[in-house]
Amino acid sequence: MLSGADIDALGQKIYKWCQDLFPICRSITGPGTRQTLTYLQDLLLGLTIHAVPSGTQVFDWTVPDEWQIKDAYILGPDGQKVVDFKDNNLHIVGYSIPTNETLTLEQLQPHLYSLPEQPDAIPYVTSYYSKRWGFCLAQEQRDALTPSEYQVVIDSEIKPGVLNYAELILPGKSEQEVFISTYVCHPSMGNNELSGPTVTAAVCQWLMQQKSLKYTYRIVFIPETIGSITYLSQHLAHLQQHVFAGFNLTCIGDDNAYSYLPSRAGDTLSDRIVKHVMHHIAPDYKQYTWLQRGSDERQYCAPGVDLPIATIMRSKYGAYPQYHTSLDNLDFISPQGLAGGADAVIKSLQILELNGTPKMLVLGEPQLGKRGLYPNMSVKGSAATVRNMMNMISYCDGKLSLLDIAEIINVPFAELYGYVEKLKAVDLLSYE
Amino acid sequence: MLSGADIDALGQKIYKWCQDLFPICRSITGPGTRQTLTYLQDLLLGLTIHAVPSGTQVFDWTVPDEWQIKDAYILGPDGQKVVDFKDNNLHIVGYSIPTNETLTLEQLQPHLYSLPEQPDAIPYVTSYYSKRWGFCLAQEQRDALTPSEYQVVIDSEIKPGVLNYAELILPGKSEQEVFISTYVCHPSMGNNELSGPTVTAAVCQWLMQQKSLKYTYRIVFIPETIGSITYLSQHLAHLQQHVFAGFNLTCIGDDNAYSYLPSRAGDTLSDRIVKHVMHHIAPDYKQYTWLQRGSDERQYCAPGVDLPIATIMRSKYGAYPQYHTSLDNLDFISPQGLAGGADAVIKSLQILELNGTPKMLVLGEPQLGKRGLYPNMSVKGSAATVRNMMNMISYCDGKLSLLDIAEIINVPFAELYGYVEKLKAVDLLSYE
Amino acid sequence: MLSGADIDALGQKIYKWCQDLFPICRSITGPGTRQTLTYLQDLLLGLTIHAVPSGTQVFDWTVPDEWQIKDAYILGPDGQKVVDFKDNNLHIVGYSIPTNETLTLEQLQPHLYSLPEQPDAIPYVTSYYSKRWGFCLAQEQRDALTPSEYQVVIDSEIKPGVLNYAELILPGKSEQEVFISTYVCHPSMGNNELSGPTVTAAVCQWLMQQKSLKYTYRIVFIPETIGSITYLSQHLAHLQQHVFAGFNLTCIGDDNAYSYLPSRAGDTLSDRIVKHVMHHIAPDYKQYTWLQRGSDERQYCAPGVDLPIATIMRSKYGAYPQYHTSLDNLDFISPQGLAGGADAVIKSLQILELNGTPKMLVLGEPQLGKRGLYPNMSVKGSAATVRNMMNMISYCDGKLSLLDIAEIINVPFAELYGYVEKLKAVDLLSYE
Repeated sequence: MLSGADIDALGQKIYKWCQDLFPICRSITGPGTRQTLTYLQDLLLGLTIHAVPSGTQVFDWTVPDEWQIKDAYILGPDGQKVVDFKDNNLHIVGYSIPTNETLTLEQLQPHLYSLPEQPDAIPYVTSYYSKRWGFCLAQEQRDALTPSEYQVVIDSEIKPGVLNYAELILPGKSEQEVFISTYVCHPSMGNNELSGPTVTAAVCQWLMQQKSLKYTYRIVFIPETIGSITYLSQHLAHLQQHVFAGFNLTCIGDDNAYSYLPSRAGDTLSDRIVKHVMHHIAPDYKQYTWLQRGSDERQYCAPGVDLPIATIMRSKYGAYPQYHTSLDNLDFISPQGLAGGADAVIKSLQILELNGTPKMLVLGEPQLGKRGLYPNMSVKGSAATVRNMMNMISYCDGKLSLLDIAEIINVPFAELYGYVEKLKAVDLLSYE
Repeated sequence: MLSGADIDALGQKIYKWCQDLFPICRSITGPGTRQTLTYLQDLLLGLTIHAVPSGTQVFDWTVPDEWQIKDAYILGPDGQKVVDFKDNNLHIVGYSIPTNETLTLEQLQPHLYSLPEQPDAIPYVTSYYSKRWGFCLAQEQRDALTPSEYQVVIDSEIKPGVLNYAELILPGKSEQEVFISTYVCHPSMGNNELSGPTVTAAVCQWLMQQKSLKYTYRIVFIPETIGSITYLSQHLAHLQQHVFAGFNLTCIGDDNAYSYLPSRAGDTLSDRIVKHVMHHIAPDYKQYTWLQRGSDERQYCAPGVDLPIATIMRSKYGAYPQYHTSLDNLDFISPQGLAGGADAVIKSLQILELNGTPKMLVLGEPQLGKRGLYPNMSVKGSAATVRNMMNMISYCDGKLSLLDIAEIINVPFAELYGYVEKLKAVDLLSYE
Repeated sequence: MLSGADIDALGQKIYKWCQDLFPICRSITGPGTRQTLTYLQDLLLGLTIHAVPSGTQVFDWTVPDEWQIKDAYILGPDGQKVVDFKDNNLHIVGYSIPTNETLTLEQLQPHLYSLPEQPDAIPYVTSYYSKRWGFCLAQEQRDALTPSEYQVVIDSEIKPGVLNYAELILPGKSEQEVFISTYVCHPSMGNNELSGPTVTAAVCQWLMQQKSLKYTYRIVFIPETIGSITYLSQHLAHLQQHVFAGFNLTCIGDDNAYSYLPSRAGDTLSDRIVKHVMHHIAPDYKQYTWLQRGSDERQYCAPGVDLPIATIMRSKYGAYPQYHTSLDNLDFISPQGLAGGADAVIKSLQILELNGTPKMLVLGEPQLGKRGLYPNMSVKGSAATVRNMMNMISYCDGKLSLLDIAEIINVPFAELYGYVEKLKAVDLLSYE
């Protein structure tokens, strides 16, 4: 298990990655996303970057043309840039078509996006599949525009190219797979979404440090929606055959909440593990329902896909005011938030790796006193000190898994696993 | 679905029928009940009236002799009628034997029925299977009687005859049947029970207006208890083989509440549909339990009968003070109340007719934007507008019925059926 | 069923037994326990006392040497006994080794046990499996000890001998067995634990008075933990094959609460019966969980043993402040408390004996009026008087047991059994 100091170091490390990646303008395709994947490749030996050509049919969708954005600004009446993509890459509506024209303020207005109720926030807007152009800006900035002529310059390109994603496979003893997915298509925002790929990278490093893995791990860094649909369309049979558990990691970097959104089935092993971990690290964690979904679980758990994927988050997308605005920045996330997210994921993976079925090798309660595992004197209250271990023992019937027992007696899995090791050491228990 | 204007017209129509039928003195047998069935026959082409002779053994019961009441009154000391059946047919205890005798007030008292706690109400009392006579009157009226001699005249007859009921069968494409039952044995009362047969008649007219019916409908207008027992004893095998859903309609004409009483099994399709409809038309509807039953569901769901019959009501029998008194009159029911009851029944039948199993024809989420079914721009909150449809889609796995899905996502069936039609139109969904 | 006077007499009888047995110094082995079993033998014809030699391997445990205590005291500086086993046998730590030495107060202190928060209570302390000696005393008494020299005398013996238990088998028509267990290893305390063996003896006498028994009853009076482990190790296969229900009786003599602790499975017939009985005799009874266990259910329900044993108590061990101290004395228990405990057990056994599956022999509701079992006149509210019977009838489908029905309609089993007898008498019901 991770110590407090480990957690601190982990948080600092992940936060540094976020700082490095923050300025890059990502989208569902294009050079910003490639640059991000290349950065991750430096962190994760074996991470491979894949490219799927524009126009490829993926289920009901088509991989779109690639978008490149070099520059975009609005010149005001005095020739000054009143809105400039170089200040903040959220200023440009994602997939804006190239433009160079002069408009009155009135003509410009339909192309501007702002949030009256959050006057200092630049909203995040995209239009992947409908050709248009637009600028996003703070309401304050918009209100300061005076009736005049404005020159709009968007130096972008939309043309056939590729959709990129990266994949890491860590082989374990079993061919059964744990699937982890996160996405890399958001421009300069923190919780949604640099936290996902960076926390996932940290989790990958932790997995790679383990002496051995019981299960094979398949981790993907993809663009949201079109990326998961693309990946599924090319790997569905394999995934359905091998994946027995998995997690979608998103919005996992702020320190305000822990959140869980279930798989569609709702009661898979993945769901049970996340609920168990959350309950013990943050008893007041937020439990959402499938009806509140909005990330790639929509694809992984779609009818006919039906993968057992649960979503682990800190503050859920849509549930915090900074969401999808420039206020979801490096100040909104924190080393503590990121490390806490990584810790929740790692604890979940530890349960996956360590869960087994304990069975007592003696009938009745064992005489633990003679083995130094029980108070050798009966006074009022003496049994309380070993209560958790005794409760566990009372359920080690060779039918219930250790996770089952942890749920029933409401004790962290890790504590119970410690008792399993003690009891195995004195040959009182088998564990398979 | 019925529009507001349709509902208004429906209420007026049903209320008019209630006004016509109110004065008739009905009982479990006799001319008043026959007259009522004949009236309904004029409304419903194909309604057939059946007659079962007195003395016929029906399960544990025997069809009783027929009762005719022509006149009944009590003459006071000055020769005036102090209680007169012609004022209100509730004045006579149902199945009172013929009498003509002079009694002191003290001798008369054991034959009088009144409600001290409802001094202006005439109670409704019957004694079908134990020979006696009696008069019901308001407590105020009773208190005004002075010690003196009273002449009691009851011009009634109890002699072999028939028990009548009416039956309407509306054939559908399937031989599977929906069974609807209501009763016609109550004298001049409104909610319990002119509302049942009149609302049922309106429902029958609605069914007869449908272009085609998926299921066959079997509707019976019977006397309560002895009538349902008689009908069951003569049709049990057929009903058990064909009826897959059904409703008992009673107390369905006032505008104070919506109420549901489950079948004995409690979780039949009929129960689920009524609960779904009630939840959406009246979220605070009253849900009773089988232990609070008291109408013909007692017979239809009896052990060994076990039909899937749920009861739809407005204010439940026994749950309103006017129940079984002269205060349950034409003022207690209303066009709005009757139409609301009919609407709940019709909505339930629509679900029966339209329920199917939707299955998406693509894997992953469909790209609805290119079909004009999804916002083509992603801004904060844009997904909310199509949330119900997307939630439905996420459950269209070819296993869950549309009703299952409507229950899971808590959206009216009719709204979801609209999405089904849209998605079928663009070949994204099959529905069987 | 027991009448009020029966209950009074029962309470007085059991309380008298408690008074007789209170002074005896019991332990898990030794003459005090034997004396107790011999006393019970006088009450219960056929009770046989068994002896298992020290050193016998029983599951993970070994039957310990036998402990005899003849005298034990601490002599103060003036030669007076400051603590004397003869005043209260709780003064000596159970299984104290023989000692005769002179110690300073400081040297003596580690051998003294008291309860600062209960200054007038002598605690109950044992050390069966770790050789030591000690004295228990009230904190007040301990605080009065002055720095000085004290002579400690313990005239005890620990040597090979036997572990005793007693067993009573009452044959019934069926070879299926009901198992009842209670324990006899506690010295002078009342609720925990003279109530268990004395109430059990009263229950045995009640069973022996029955004209015939449907099931065979196996009742054991044993030392706690080592006794149940010993008994199980020698009878496990038989018990697993024959026992279909059973109860552990402990802490069943005070009048402050009714308590139930479930079997590990939690939903056995034994559990359901205890819950039903408790619910009706004490609706606010305390329902504990398996995680709060602490008596011989730990062994009977251990993994691989898995007997269907539920525990019936008044105030649960550990849940009242007097527990395991000298304050759990003859004043803490009472005739009312003991009789109430016995009554709960007897009611449970009656359900076991009488439970069957009722099936109506007619379809639909029977016409009870013609048999004098139903009001023959219908007035407002007349159905309420027979509501429980009618509800029962509505579930007599030949599938549900009478206990099932009693649970569903929330009426005491005994009341329903009365209706069963009435309906059988008029050939309306079969009951098997």
